[in-house]
Amino acid sequence: MTKQKVAIIGAGPAGLQSAVSLAELGYEVDLYEKKSRPGGHLAEWHVLFPDMQPAGELLDSLMQKVLAHPQIRLETGVNISGLEQAGKSWQLIQSDSVRGEADAVVLASGFKLFEASKKEEYGHGIYPAVISSAELETIFIREKEWPFEKTNKSPKIGLVHCVGSRDAKCGNLYCSKACCITAVKQAIELKKTFPASEVYCFYMDMRMFGLGYEELYHKAQLDYKVQFIRGRLSEASPSGAGRIQVKAEDTLMGRPLKLTLDMLVLMVGMTASVSPEVKENTVELKEYANKGEFVKIPGAVIGAAQWLKPGLFVAGACKGPATLPEVLNDARATALDLRNYLSGVL
Amino acid sequence: MTKQKVAIIGAGPAGLQSAVSLAELGYEVDLYEKKSRPGGHLAEWHVLFPDMQPAGELLDSLMQKVLAHPQIRLETGVNISGLEQAGKSWQLIQSDSVRGEADAVVLASGFKLFEASKKEEYGHGIYPAVISSAELETIFIREKEWPFEKTNKSPKIGLVHCVGSRDAKCGNLYCSKACCITAVKQAIELKKTFPASEVYCFYMDMRMFGLGYEELYHKAQLDYKVQFIRGRLSEASPSGAGRIQVKAEDTLMGRPLKLTLDMLVLMVGMTASVSPEVKENTVELKEYANKGEFVKIPGAVIGAAQWLKPGLFVAGACKGPATLPEVLNDARATALDLRNYLSGVL
Repeated sequence: MTKQKVAIIGAGPAGLQSAVSLAELGYEVDLYEKKSRPGGHLAEWHVLFPDMQPAGELLDSLMQKVLAHPQIRLETGVNISGLEQAGKSWQLIQSDSVRGEADAVVLASGFKLFEASKKEEYGHGIYPAVISSAELETIFIREKEWPFEKTNKSPKIGLVHCVGSRDAKCGNLYCSKACCITAVKQAIELKKTFPASEVYCFYMDMRMFGLGYEELYHKAQLDYKVQFIRGRLSEASPSGAGRIQVKAEDTLMGRPLKLTLDMLVLMVGMTASVSPEVKENTVELKEYANKGEFVKIPGAVIGAAQWLKPGLFVAGACKGPATLPEVLNDARATALDLRNYLSGVL
Repeated sequence: MTKQKVAIIGAGPAGLQSAVSLAELGYEVDLYEKKSRPGGHLAEWHVLFPDMQPAGELLDSLMQKVLAHPQIRLETGVNISGLEQAGKSWQLIQSDSVRGEADAVVLASGFKLFEASKKEEYGHGIYPAVISSAELETIFIREKEWPFEKTNKSPKIGLVHCVGSRDAKCGNLYCSKACCITAVKQAIELKKTFPASEVYCFYMDMRMFGLGYEELYHKAQLDYKVQFIRGRLSEASPSGAGRIQVKAEDTLMGRPLKLTLDMLVLMVGMTASVSPEVKENTVELKEYANKGEFVKIPGAVIGAAQWLKPGLFVAGACKGPATLPEVLNDARATALDLRNYLSGVL
């Protein structure tokens, strides 16, 4: 009997873990990645919260399993823009031609980071001292230049939580969940790099909901003297020598606050990434692509099967903001649901 | 060939979902529950956040799958107090005698709710008007009597977040994650039941990290006029006619606050529940039982296999506070890891 085949769209953590789990369950797996290299955002991240483990280690371990498995075929630089269902089989479309076929599909296209420049008041893309949390990771990972004087060993740095999240003006009312703990992690990394620095986190609520998060938050306060200020920045403006002046209200102290900083880091949240080029015939996805929304699985909160319809499964952060352990568990749960579908149990 | 057998300890959501997933993967499953009925805390819960779905519906759907599957054998009233490993086989011990054998074990013993009376300053167990969030669920679910006058259609009700969580005095520094959103859900339920009531939530940080949580929090504020006050209660004291007086500092308004309430609900968090009677020979678990700690899986945050050692798997909230969708995904991920172990892949 020919082995059944599964196509996975997206080779970030969700796609890689889905591929490994499905191959281990005995399926042939075609894993398609739009970019020239796999890994998704994980490939651009320095260390992970809360254990400060290098992101590259997790990615390497996933990649090794993918590359070592004879039943997984990874193709990069392939933009699957549509899906066509013919009976129980799925055709994967690339630029109007059929790129591949499969018995089931896993959409694992992940998320996009909020574009920091959309929050104009913070001046990202205008003032060099204003960078996003993702850009801070690339500075750490590639040891790139800091956006302030090399001689400055005691920079004042501000981190702004909830940039593009919990913000009706941006149309993103939801919480992006991973930014608060990322800010704590990055604040600690900054203090490790510049022990004489002053680091301020501007937050609305400190959302330390995961294993070890609260503990890391305490460590940031007690061991690293990171200062947490409850308040939203109103604006950032230039202040000579490339510095940035910020204004906020400290809502706990009940007083206005004005600070001049050497660097301002904007904690950008996760936004939906279902490709807007998704073909008209992929009706189920078209809706989400047009609205720029995360894919909603009916009954997902009470553990319903991770599919949008029979044969079309969805794994990871394209369903909404998620942390890495959540994504990896979700990919495994999806693999199990898919197995049940192909073996007739579901 | 005889089918391989898996024993699962605990028939709450994690155990039930593990049993279903493992049976669907072809294993014989012995599911042991200490109490006389399965379901864990889910059986005592009214509706679920954020969709207000009856908890009983989810439990019924899980139970139907368990009872319908010929490979699952559910035994209630069985307290497995020890595990002995003999070669690759596991013996399950009950009161010093061998109760059963299995090729692998899933510990799914869940969590205990923090005992509200331990926070003496709130007067739980002393003042009838002070109840726990779990007790509020049983009032909803069984339509029990309210702890205030029947004629009172406009009660003043306070909900206290973080009771026994984020509290060094209790030894629980961690965030119990599900209490904030439970408070929002219960506040809405209270307003639905008593539209003329005044409902106050006393919080430290509003941790609305999950899908639909932030939206429900907004709904509670805008549609239900629940009042959210950032501040920790210092104490609760009786105030005539069974009412309760509370004192707090409103840390956002920077002013002290005194309120007389008809009911005070303490949002109790999750604490570890690994049975202290676990036999000396189950060395791996004994440590957690003695310390009253959640079971820690090495590498869990980066998706390592859900086992404590080869053959001994751990699923759900006995690893730490978790929401229902997390528990259900975790149980499926555990089932997949266990399959890989028994089939020699892991």
